[in-house]
Amino acid sequence: MKLPLGFRYAATYAGIRKTKKDDVALIVPDQPARAAAVFTRNVVQAAPVKLAKQNLKISKGKVTAVLINAGNANCATRTGERVALASCKALAKALKTRPEYVVPASTGVIGVELDANLLTAPFPKLVEMLDAGNFQAVAEAIMTTDTRPKVASEEVQMAAGNVRVAGMTKGSGMIHPNMATTLGFVMTDAIADAEDLQEILRHATDRSFNSLTVDGDMSTNDTVLLLASGASKVRPSSKERKALQEAVTWVMESLAEQIAADGEGARKLIVVRALGFKTREDARKIARAISNSPLVKTAVAGSDANWGRVLAAAGYAGVDFNPDDIDIEMQRVPVCRGGLAANYDEDELKQKLNESEVRIRIVNRKGGKGEARFFTCDLTEGYIQINGSYRT
Amino acid sequence: MKLPLGFRYAATYAGIRKTKKDDVALIVPDQPARAAAVFTRNVVQAAPVKLAKQNLKISKGKVTAVLINAGNANCATRTGERVALASCKALAKALKTRPEYVVPASTGVIGVELDANLLTAPFPKLVEMLDAGNFQAVAEAIMTTDTRPKVASEEVQMAAGNVRVAGMTKGSGMIHPNMATTLGFVMTDAIADAEDLQEILRHATDRSFNSLTVDGDMSTNDTVLLLASGASKVRPSSKERKALQEAVTWVMESLAEQIAADGEGARKLIVVRALGFKTREDARKIARAISNSPLVKTAVAGSDANWGRVLAAAGYAGVDFNPDDIDIEMQRVPVCRGGLAANYDEDELKQKLNESEVRIRIVNRKGGKGEARFFTCDLTEGYIQINGSYRT
Repeated sequence: MKLPLGFRYAATYAGIRKTKKDDVALIVPDQPARAAAVFTRNVVQAAPVKLAKQNLKISKGKVTAVLINAGNANCATRTGERVALASCKALAKALKTRPEYVVPASTGVIGVELDANLLTAPFPKLVEMLDAGNFQAVAEAIMTTDTRPKVASEEVQMAAGNVRVAGMTKGSGMIHPNMATTLGFVMTDAIADAEDLQEILRHATDRSFNSLTVDGDMSTNDTVLLLASGASKVRPSSKERKALQEAVTWVMESLAEQIAADGEGARKLIVVRALGFKTREDARKIARAISNSPLVKTAVAGSDANWGRVLAAAGYAGVDFNPDDIDIEMQRVPVCRGGLAANYDEDELKQKLNESEVRIRIVNRKGGKGEARFFTCDLTEGYIQINGSYRT
Repeated sequence: MKLPLGFRYAATYAGIRKTKKDDVALIVPDQPARAAAVFTRNVVQAAPVKLAKQNLKISKGKVTAVLINAGNANCATRTGERVALASCKALAKALKTRPEYVVPASTGVIGVELDANLLTAPFPKLVEMLDAGNFQAVAEAIMTTDTRPKVASEEVQMAAGNVRVAGMTKGSGMIHPNMATTLGFVMTDAIADAEDLQEILRHATDRSFNSLTVDGDMSTNDTVLLLASGASKVRPSSKERKALQEAVTWVMESLAEQIAADGEGARKLIVVRALGFKTREDARKIARAISNSPLVKTAVAGSDANWGRVLAAAGYAGVDFNPDDIDIEMQRVPVCRGGLAANYDEDELKQKLNESEVRIRIVNRKGGKGEARFFTCDLTEGYIQINGSYRT
């Protein structure tokens, strides 16, 4: 991975989660970075989400540190806001910066008090540890029920030199579109102002984290942050900004795919494409309904080409269409033509559905140019096992 | 069970489903009954749904027979409409009535051709078998993945004599609110006209089948039919009509509860009540979001009082509220007060959550008078097993 210049990372175990696995992490730009962020749209918002919003407003998008903890969401607690504020202050002191330049982010259980002392105790040690090589360690520290860390990177050539984009994220339950979804941190060493970054992030989020569903649940803590260090000394021209946007989108799409593929209990990534609908929004509704359908997701788990469930899910998406105009493909095999069963070899298709990536494509022959893609995963016994015993 | 007078029933095995279990059934009023119906709002509608609508329109709500089959939804098939039409014609001939007075209803797999000959062959035998005592046999014949038949009845005293209401229904996957949901047949021997029945059915459906979710999926075949034989010779006065409405609502609420309790793989019925929200619609959105949340449903499966998930689900319901005003109870134990953890005995509550019925109550202290109730079930490994292998 070619990491963006100008960022250092650190992670350690602070004792917030029970298992001894790093649970506090820092991302620190060498110079104040420019930042853009998207947050959960849940009415119930965790204390760090509220404080992060407030800090970014006061700092006008300048960030000198990102403070992340796993194991406790710091949400719906008595001391939540005090803890979030105190930890930002303590970190600012350790880094000799202003508390308003620190962005806090938490993930973990809801409704349990977070001990500020546990969180802040390792700050001196963490600051000492900061190193450009610790990117992967932070990606591992932010994991909760994830089975593997999720990272992606991209390098773009510009007239004045190369710029790099690298991101990390965590899943893998309580994932739902229509919001920032989970924790995601994307760094670039391009020079960019906060406005450009916000536009790039909006575009990339729409196509990645907001096109992702594991279980339809929407967390109280979701935060995606895009940071630009400027350390490449390359300021993309207005034309090149498009290339930067594409690189960020590509990285975030990869992260979203990885979240879906590592959805709680998932054995398969499902990529749903809807094409030929009136608008992109219509296509999104169709793709989302299919991706959210437990019946579709269990059918894929069982390698069952049950396209009737795909058609039925499209039918309740809230989009008007004529079923007679609908074609459906699974693993590129036509299973439904004009709303009716196509001729296909069940056994052959069952084999193909055993693969770790399943592609479902639904096309409206007479709709329009609206298209959308959604990422999800199959629904297995593993999801139930993980979530029936998460707190205990 | 006190059954309504004036109805006969029959069921037999026609070979539509693979397992040898009754799969065709009739409900036949002695005299043409008055009927009201609600159907799926899915854009994709099965042939019998389309024909049932058309027939009820032509007959102005008169019904001389209900023809039901399980094992095949007769949806998204080449011959669907022809098969539905031919079977109504054949039955009308056998019963010496008009095809437009027959209401067809199908449930089962989507996208597989239904053999009209299989369906119609047993009609003479079925007509022969018609008997007032076969109510339970029909309730069993309409089952698909249900583990038990679902029936309910009620008797109401009116000035001119008693009237009876009895219903049957089937679940148990592809259950979702906002529509008629699954197959339901409710009979009464009161005298009522189609308009009254439609109003009674609308009211009762809103509080029962439309307040029910097993997996958030919406079928293509859902039909609920309310039939009045008039055989009690009692015509409820305008005041008594309210009592009839209550009896129908009670029967349908019981049926909806039974569907949730027998949800695919379910071990527990979950009843969610939302109170103190601005409007009934707001309260419904909150109760529905909680009922649809896989995280809430798996927590209940694991007897885990994870109220944070309840609060988070309420937070993404699309209703504006202040989390600080929210109280949550599980099994009548306060678990959240003013958006924060309440003091309760985890072990004691875990015991209570092991019961077969789990009650979740969410109250907005400062909202209003809007309240709603929703039925759902826990989400277990069984759901995955059933739906990963339904067709195979």
